[in-house]
Amino acid sequence: MSIVVVGTVAFDTVETPFGRGDNVLGGSATYFSTSASFFTDVSLVAVVGEDFPDEHLDFLKSRDIDTAGLVKIPGKTFHWSGRYGYDLNEAQTLETQLNVLMEFRPDLPESYRDAEYLFLANIDPDLQLEVLRQVRKPRLVACDTMNFWIGSKPEALKEVLRKVDMVVINEGEARQFTGESNLVKAARRIISLGCKRLIVKRGEYGVLMFTADSLFAAPAYPLEEVYDPTGAGDTFAGGLMGYLANTGNFSDEGVRQAIVFGSVMASFNVEDFSLNRMKRLTYPEIESRYRSFKALTHFQGLPDQLD
Amino acid sequence: MSIVVVGTVAFDTVETPFGRGDNVLGGSATYFSTSASFFTDVSLVAVVGEDFPDEHLDFLKSRDIDTAGLVKIPGKTFHWSGRYGYDLNEAQTLETQLNVLMEFRPDLPESYRDAEYLFLANIDPDLQLEVLRQVRKPRLVACDTMNFWIGSKPEALKEVLRKVDMVVINEGEARQFTGESNLVKAARRIISLGCKRLIVKRGEYGVLMFTADSLFAAPAYPLEEVYDPTGAGDTFAGGLMGYLANTGNFSDEGVRQAIVFGSVMASFNVEDFSLNRMKRLTYPEIESRYRSFKALTHFQGLPDQLD
Repeated sequence: MSIVVVGTVAFDTVETPFGRGDNVLGGSATYFSTSASFFTDVSLVAVVGEDFPDEHLDFLKSRDIDTAGLVKIPGKTFHWSGRYGYDLNEAQTLETQLNVLMEFRPDLPESYRDAEYLFLANIDPDLQLEVLRQVRKPRLVACDTMNFWIGSKPEALKEVLRKVDMVVINEGEARQFTGESNLVKAARRIISLGCKRLIVKRGEYGVLMFTADSLFAAPAYPLEEVYDPTGAGDTFAGGLMGYLANTGNFSDEGVRQAIVFGSVMASFNVEDFSLNRMKRLTYPEIESRYRSFKALTHFQGLPDQLD
Repeated sequence: MSIVVVGTVAFDTVETPFGRGDNVLGGSATYFSTSASFFTDVSLVAVVGEDFPDEHLDFLKSRDIDTAGLVKIPGKTFHWSGRYGYDLNEAQTLETQLNVLMEFRPDLPESYRDAEYLFLANIDPDLQLEVLRQVRKPRLVACDTMNFWIGSKPEALKEVLRKVDMVVINEGEARQFTGESNLVKAARRIISLGCKRLIVKRGEYGVLMFTADSLFAAPAYPLEEVYDPTGAGDTFAGGLMGYLANTGNFSDEGVRQAIVFGSVMASFNVEDFSLNRMKRLTYPEIESRYRSFKALTHFQGLPDQLD
C-alpha cells in the first residue's frame, strides 16, 4: 500500500490578489506526497539543487515521506513564478527556471521498483515511460500531464495513456489534446486511446470521472477564503491515490469516494499559500469536510431508487 | 398549485457552432411555462405583437398553459438575436428589438391574483414590484434578473430581493451585483439583503443553492450533444418551480429535489434549438434522467453517516 510519486520539488513565487509567497516550497511531487501521506506511505522521486534547505526536507520527513528517491545535485532547484487574478482558475506563468530539472533522469531506488501504486506527476512523457519501465508490477498507475507536453510530445503522451490505469487532466487540456470542444466527446476520445479511467479537473467547478460505461460528477467545495490555488491538482491526486492505496478498493464506488477525499484535500490546500494549510491539517478535519461534502451534494432519489 | 409567470414571449434568432434558428419561438416566460407545464398548471403573463402566429399559441395551449394573460397589442413582438461560440456558457447579444415590450405594463387577470406560486422572470424590477403588488397572498415567489437591471436599477432590484422567497441568478451576475469575486461571499451578501434562498446558475457547471445555513451543489448533466443553450436558465426555473408547486414541499430536501428536476429540464432543452426538444419530451424521459442524475452524483458517506 505504498505509493511512489515521480515529479517535481520546487521553489514557487506566487502572487494572488490576497498576497504573495516568495521562494516558497512547491512542486507537483511535494503537494502530491504531502496530501497522500495523510492516508498511506509515500516515496518521492525528484531532483533538487544544492540550495534546497534542510527545513523543507525535515517537513517531508515529518509527514513520514520516504525521501530516498529525492536526489540533490549541483545547481539550483527548479523555480516557478506565477500570478493569479481574481479568476483563480487560471495561472499566468511569469517565469520558469528549470535549473536542475533539465538533468532529471528518474532512476528509482531498488526498493521502489516493487511499488504497488505509482503516480506520474506532470513531467516529460518520455520520462514517464522510463519510470514505467522501471516499476515491475504496479497494481495501479495514474498520471497527470500539461498543455506543453500535449503540444510538443503527443505521441509519447498517447503511449503513456495506454499504459496507465487512470489519467488526471485539466478540462482545457482534455479539449486541447483532442481538438474537441465538447468535454464529454473529448473524454470519450481519450478513453478510446486506451485510458481506462479519466478524471477531468475543472478547478472551482470540481471534477468529472469518465470510464467507458460510467460517469461521476463531484463539485469543488465552495469556500469563502481561497488564497492560493497552486498545487490544488496535485493535492487532489494525492488524496485520490492515497485513499485508493489505503483501501485497495478500485471499484467504481471506491474510486468515487477517493475522488471526494481528493477534493477534500484540495479544498484545504487552497486555504493558504504553499503547503501552509497542509502543515497544520489534521485527519479529523479531513473526515469532517468529507461529511460536509456528502451534505453538500446529497439529494433524494426517486422513491424506487436506491439512495 | 397553479403558477403564474410574468416575463417575455419572443422571437429569437440564434447562431451556435451547430446551426441556427431564425425567428424561432423564445422568451423567458415561454421557456419557463413550457418546462413547468410538465409538473403543474401554469398561467402566463406577457405581451406579443400582431405578428405572433397562432401556431405558437396553439403550442402553448397544447401544453395546457393558460394564456389569458398573454396580451396581443399593435406592433411587433420582442426580438432577440444572439450568437454562441464553442464556449456555450456565454451568449453574445447581436441585437435586441424591444418592440411591444416597451409597452409592457403587467395587469394580471383577476383570476391570477390569487396565485399561490409566482415566478418573476427577467424584466424591469419596477415591473416585478408592480406584479408583487397585484398578487394577494402567494405561498412562494421566485425571481430572476440580469446584468442590465443590476447596472441600471440596483435599488428597485434590492427591493424585489427583499420581497421574494427565492432568487435565481447567474454566477457572473451574483459577482457583479455585490462587487465580490468570491462566489460564497457574494452569495452571503445577497442573502444578507433579505433574500432567503439564492440559487446561482453556473451554466455547464450546474447550480449552487445558498440559504443562511445550508449549501447544495448540483452539477449540470454532462451532454455529448449541446446545440443551443438559449432558455436553459428559464427552463431550469420552470422545472424547479413546477416541481415545488406540484409537491408543496419547501423543505431543504424538497427544494434540492426540485433543483435536480430543474437541471433535468434544462439538460433536455439544450439538446435542440428553440423549444424543439420540449415539444417531443415525455414525462418518463424526465424521470429517467432524474435517475441518471442520482447515479451521476452519488457516493458513499462515511460509515456512520446517513446516506
